[in-house]
Amino acid sequence: MDRLRAFLRESRCDAILVSHLPNIRYLCGFSGSAGLLLLDSASATLFTDSRYTLQCRQEVEGARTRICTHGPIRAVGDELRTSRGRTRVAFSLSSVTVAQRQGLESATGSRVRWVGDQAAVEKLRALKDAFEVDTMRQAAALISRVVDAAIEGIRPGVTEMDLAAKIEFEIKHGGGSGPSFEPIVASGARSAWAHARPTAKRLGRNELVVLDQGAILHGYCSDMTRTVFIGRAPRKVRQLYEAVLEAQAAAKSAIRPGAKAGDIDRAARRVLTRNGFGRYFTHSTGHGLGLEVHEFPRIGRREDTELRPGMVLTVEPGVYLEGLGGIRIEDDVLVTARGAEDITTSPRNFIEL
Amino acid sequence: MDRLRAFLRESRCDAILVSHLPNIRYLCGFSGSAGLLLLDSASATLFTDSRYTLQCRQEVEGARTRICTHGPIRAVGDELRTSRGRTRVAFSLSSVTVAQRQGLESATGSRVRWVGDQAAVEKLRALKDAFEVDTMRQAAALISRVVDAAIEGIRPGVTEMDLAAKIEFEIKHGGGSGPSFEPIVASGARSAWAHARPTAKRLGRNELVVLDQGAILHGYCSDMTRTVFIGRAPRKVRQLYEAVLEAQAAAKSAIRPGAKAGDIDRAARRVLTRNGFGRYFTHSTGHGLGLEVHEFPRIGRREDTELRPGMVLTVEPGVYLEGLGGIRIEDDVLVTARGAEDITTSPRNFIEL
Repeated sequence: MDRLRAFLRESRCDAILVSHLPNIRYLCGFSGSAGLLLLDSASATLFTDSRYTLQCRQEVEGARTRICTHGPIRAVGDELRTSRGRTRVAFSLSSVTVAQRQGLESATGSRVRWVGDQAAVEKLRALKDAFEVDTMRQAAALISRVVDAAIEGIRPGVTEMDLAAKIEFEIKHGGGSGPSFEPIVASGARSAWAHARPTAKRLGRNELVVLDQGAILHGYCSDMTRTVFIGRAPRKVRQLYEAVLEAQAAAKSAIRPGAKAGDIDRAARRVLTRNGFGRYFTHSTGHGLGLEVHEFPRIGRREDTELRPGMVLTVEPGVYLEGLGGIRIEDDVLVTARGAEDITTSPRNFIEL
Repeated sequence: MDRLRAFLRESRCDAILVSHLPNIRYLCGFSGSAGLLLLDSASATLFTDSRYTLQCRQEVEGARTRICTHGPIRAVGDELRTSRGRTRVAFSLSSVTVAQRQGLESATGSRVRWVGDQAAVEKLRALKDAFEVDTMRQAAALISRVVDAAIEGIRPGVTEMDLAAKIEFEIKHGGGSGPSFEPIVASGARSAWAHARPTAKRLGRNELVVLDQGAILHGYCSDMTRTVFIGRAPRKVRQLYEAVLEAQAAAKSAIRPGAKAGDIDRAARRVLTRNGFGRYFTHSTGHGLGLEVHEFPRIGRREDTELRPGMVLTVEPGVYLEGLGGIRIEDDVLVTARGAEDITTSPRNFIEL
C-alpha cells in the first residue's frame, strides 16, 4: 500500500479505486469474489457484501471493511461524494466496465475526475518479495512433483480427460488449492492445438503428449509444460524437441536484470528460426506469473519492459505442426541479480515411454 | 440469432456487439476464451485470434470468422467504420470495459452511436430449449451421482481439500468437462461461511459438513448443495435442518409460470422467519443456471422477473450461525407449465453419518 501511495503522489491523484480482484488480494489480503478497495494517502477501505463478513475479519489487513447492502459501487460513490478534497481518483480502464463507470459517475457527480491508473498495481505485483518468492517456489515444486507422477501414469488407452483429472486430484492432494487453469492434456494430432482442452480421446502409441498445467498454492500460481512421446520417436520429432529445448535454454540465458522482455523472446525465436522451425512458433515466449497465471510483463516480440530481480516468468517456446503434433517445454524462472533460476524442476530431457 | 434480430428491430438498433463469452457461445457455438461477435439484420461475424483458427472451423455456426492480428476491438472498429448505414450499435454495459469502449470509440469515431443492450442475450438465454433442458438434466444427474458418492466417502479425518479433490475427480471421470465452480467443502464452524474454500482442516466428529458443487457437461452447469452431520446431531441442528428443508419446499411450491422471482424468495424467507431463523438467512434464494453457474434471473427479495416455462433455477435457502455452523440445501429446478420439477435428485432427508 505504501508503494501504491507513492504512485498516487507521483500521478497527482488523491485516491485510487482498485477493482481487479487479484490486485485487491495483493494489497489487503481479501480473497473473496466481489469487492472494491478505495485507497488514499491516509486510509484504505474494502467495500464488499454480507457473504464475506466473517472472511474479512480473518483475511483483511491494513484496510477497514464496509459491508454494503446496495452494492459496492454505490457505497464507493457515497464515500467519495461526502468526503472533501478527493478530486482526482485513479481507476483501472481494463477492469472497470462501462456500467460500473456510469454507476460511479452518477453516484459522485462532477466532484470526481476519474483517471486511468496505468496498471499501477500490476506493476507493483511484478516484483515479488521474499515471502512471495518462497510461496512460488513451493507452488513450482508442487507442480513438478505432480507432473513427474502424471508422466509415470501415461500409457496407451488412458483418456486425456482421466489424465487431466488425475493431475487436478494430485494438485489438491499435494496441498494446492487447485489448478491455476484447466490442465491441457493433448495427444497425437491434437497436440498441435496450443490451447486444446482434454477430451475423451485415448492416448495412443507413437503419439506426442503435451501436458501443460499449474497449481495454486496459498494464492500463487505455477505453470509448467512437458512433452513426451509414447513409443520410439521418429527423427523429425526428436529434432523438433531438441530445437525447442535449445530455444528455451537460449531464452533463459538471455534473462538478466536490465534485459528487455523482447530480448528474451528474440533469443528463443532465433534458435528455432536457425533450425528452420521459426514459422511453427506461433505464440510469445512467456509471461509474468504470480497471483494470476498470466500477469505483467508479457515476454513477447516487441515488449520493452526491463527485467528486474524478483520477477517470476514463464519461458515456454513451442512448435506446432498440423498433422504431426506440437512440442512445448515450459518452466517458471525467477529473475535474480545474476540471471535466471529455474523454480520448476521436472527433467527436460526427451522422454520416450 | 433470429430472436436477437427481433430485439434489434424493437430497439431500433442496426447491430449488436456481443462481448460476454457465454453469450457468444450461446449464439454461434464458439467456446474459446477471446472474441467478439458482431450481428446485424443480415449477417454475423466472429472476431478472434490465430490461436482459435482450427477451433472455429469445428465449432462456429451461423457466423463467419475473422482472425484478427491486431486484436478484435480494432477489427470491429474497422468493420463498423467502413460499412454504410450502421449508426446505432447495441453493446453490453456490464461486460465491456472502459478501455474497450475507448478503443471502439477511437476506431469508429462519431459514426457509431453506442447504446446499452439491456441484457438482451441474457434474457434469451434464460429460456432453455429442449436440447438445453436435456443437457441440463444430464449435468444435474451427474452432480447428483457425484455427491451421493462423496457423502459415502465422508468420515472423520478426511480433509476438506481431499473431499473437494475427489468431487472434482468424479465430475471429470463421470464425463463432465469440470466443476462449474470450485467445490465448497466446509466443516464445523467453517460451514457458517457461505463461500468457504476447502482447507486442510480434517472433518471431525459432531460437525456439520456443507458440500456445494456443480458439474459442467457439454457447456451447461449444474449446482447442488447438501449438508450432513457427522455423528448424532443436537436437537438445535436438527430443527435448523428441518426449517431449511421446509423453506426450500415452500419456495419450490411457489414456482409457476407468471409468479415473480421475488415471490419465490419470500416463500422461503417466510418459513425461516416463522421458525425464528430469518436473520440467519443472509443471501438470496437462488439464481438462473445454464451456460453460466449464475445467470439471469436472480431469485432475490425485490426481483420482479416473471417466471416462464423453460427457465432453470437454483433453490438454495440456508442458515449460518457463527460458532455452530451452516446448513444449506440446494436443488436445480426446471420451471414447467404446471410448476417446478427437480432435476437434481440426491436425497434431501437429514443424514447423520
